[in-house]
Amino acid sequence: MRAVRLTELGGPEKLHVADVPKPEAGPGQIVVRVKRAAFNRRDVFITQNLYPGISLPRTLGSDACGVVDSIGEGVQGCAVGAPVVINPELGWAGDGPLPDTSGDILGMPTDGTFAEFVVVPAANVYAKPAALSDDEAAAIPLAGLTAYRATFTRGKITKDDVVFIPGVGSGVQTFVLAYAKHVGARTVVTSGSDEKLERAKALGADVAINYNTDADWHKTARKAAGGAGPTLVVDSSGGDTLTKSIDIVAPGGRVVIYGGTRGDAKVRPFSIFWKHIDVLGTSMGSPSDFAAMLKLFETGVKPAIDRVFPMDDVVSAAERVLAGDQFGKVVLAIGE
Amino acid sequence: MRAVRLTELGGPEKLHVADVPKPEAGPGQIVVRVKRAAFNRRDVFITQNLYPGISLPRTLGSDACGVVDSIGEGVQGCAVGAPVVINPELGWAGDGPLPDTSGDILGMPTDGTFAEFVVVPAANVYAKPAALSDDEAAAIPLAGLTAYRATFTRGKITKDDVVFIPGVGSGVQTFVLAYAKHVGARTVVTSGSDEKLERAKALGADVAINYNTDADWHKTARKAAGGAGPTLVVDSSGGDTLTKSIDIVAPGGRVVIYGGTRGDAKVRPFSIFWKHIDVLGTSMGSPSDFAAMLKLFETGVKPAIDRVFPMDDVVSAAERVLAGDQFGKVVLAIGE
Repeated sequence: MRAVRLTELGGPEKLHVADVPKPEAGPGQIVVRVKRAAFNRRDVFITQNLYPGISLPRTLGSDACGVVDSIGEGVQGCAVGAPVVINPELGWAGDGPLPDTSGDILGMPTDGTFAEFVVVPAANVYAKPAALSDDEAAAIPLAGLTAYRATFTRGKITKDDVVFIPGVGSGVQTFVLAYAKHVGARTVVTSGSDEKLERAKALGADVAINYNTDADWHKTARKAAGGAGPTLVVDSSGGDTLTKSIDIVAPGGRVVIYGGTRGDAKVRPFSIFWKHIDVLGTSMGSPSDFAAMLKLFETGVKPAIDRVFPMDDVVSAAERVLAGDQFGKVVLAIGE
Repeated sequence: MRAVRLTELGGPEKLHVADVPKPEAGPGQIVVRVKRAAFNRRDVFITQNLYPGISLPRTLGSDACGVVDSIGEGVQGCAVGAPVVINPELGWAGDGPLPDTSGDILGMPTDGTFAEFVVVPAANVYAKPAALSDDEAAAIPLAGLTAYRATFTRGKITKDDVVFIPGVGSGVQTFVLAYAKHVGARTVVTSGSDEKLERAKALGADVAINYNTDADWHKTARKAAGGAGPTLVVDSSGGDTLTKSIDIVAPGGRVVIYGGTRGDAKVRPFSIFWKHIDVLGTSMGSPSDFAAMLKLFETGVKPAIDRVFPMDDVVSAAERVLAGDQFGKVVLAIGE
């Protein structure tokens, strides 16, 4: 079968399509024939050696939708040909507050979804939400799960929240925006691109601020939130964005972080204790989070799709994610 | 009546005893005849202009025990002469997650307990725990409340926790240690003073580390905690101590902060999101916290008393708190 392989580190251009053996379904496993996969920043970080626990050579990719190809021994309630999506979190068996193993995610250290076939534990295979196209279904697993746990399980969003979403263009942040609108919360978003801000507004963002042209974007965001500032922040920027998010969040508010692409943040303890706020870390999500997340997509919520690239254009797709030019998810067309 | 007054800013030496009118109990108020008061770092910060909302001249002091002197109109269930302690939090009426008004604390902006008499809302007057001496009862209100909310309400301590308590000598931290021992949790403490570490061990600290002689104190603390590190940290240091506390706390752990005397902290987002930790701010506590805290002192928990100073030696008492030489609470003897 054809697969996107990484045999050496050095950036997105090291990704290439190669022929590898088709995987077989062992006991308790399912082989999925992949129709669409999708990129996460993680895939690009791995090519750059910016992720823990890399082992090569490897087929990358965490997100996919497709159909059941073959079923291993002992697997119940699953039919060949059924349309499915895959939960890429392999290290979180129960519903505890933590994964059993951090970083055990489809696509590294195990072979992933950028291939015509992928083998996964049967427990990670879910029925594809009927309301979604293949492109849309492939776009949701990792980012939709991360956003779900950040927004609901950790952030405990309600319709009364004012949600601040810095850097709205990224895959996960577009899901946070969609979820916040779904529950009826008010949203304030930022981006460095007016084009992305327009797209966010089209998806229902109430206030959109360009941090490249508004040096006081955090003050603008606080004012736009009304009251004492945003009550919930979901961020993966870290750095100065996290510093300012903690400074502008309302008393009693929650700042949920699932990443730190801009590095360390200088934090004022006073902003945390005087305002009684919660700064909450999260990464991926539990099986319950994944199941609850899928249900949202049966009730009208839609993922934001940036572009669909053919499998052979995988380097271009990865470079688009690396450049941060996308709004929403970059999808890879693998098969039909 | 005699009272410790602050009429100008400039440090502890600006505190002085003066004659001022005795307060009267208005509707819904109680006048308490103060027997013992106690210092908090806050009192010293105020003399140094390091606290928000200062208005002078003022009688300082948040902590007191004494007896009911007179009772205002409409106050029920309270007898003249009854031994009482005072909840110094004046801005937190209900049991919400936040005070209604931050910083509305007895002793600033209202006249406080460093006086022969103090007038307070009847709702802030509680029966003195019978098991405690006057010195002990005076020592608990502000620090005991802060520690209670940090350890129980926010930190959700259980007997299975390993609690890391940096800077164990301060008033609040000695309460955190006492509470942690009370529930049966394991404790790891630090101080820059071997004498304080010995006192902490005498109070039941399982592991005591001198951060002045152990440059890798955080690694020592993580190792001593066993497993993946401490599961709960309660800190008011901020700065490098907060940075390292976040780095060593176990996955799924909680870092509760109620102060930041060492200033801003550089925080690695990765430590927060990859470990799914909670960084939780807190300050003072609700009426329910105060009532639940008092109950602990009826079951054998004791506050740590550093020294008792006569009222006329108030400057020496304040300078001891400023120097950080104390272990536990510095008490002021006001009357009998």
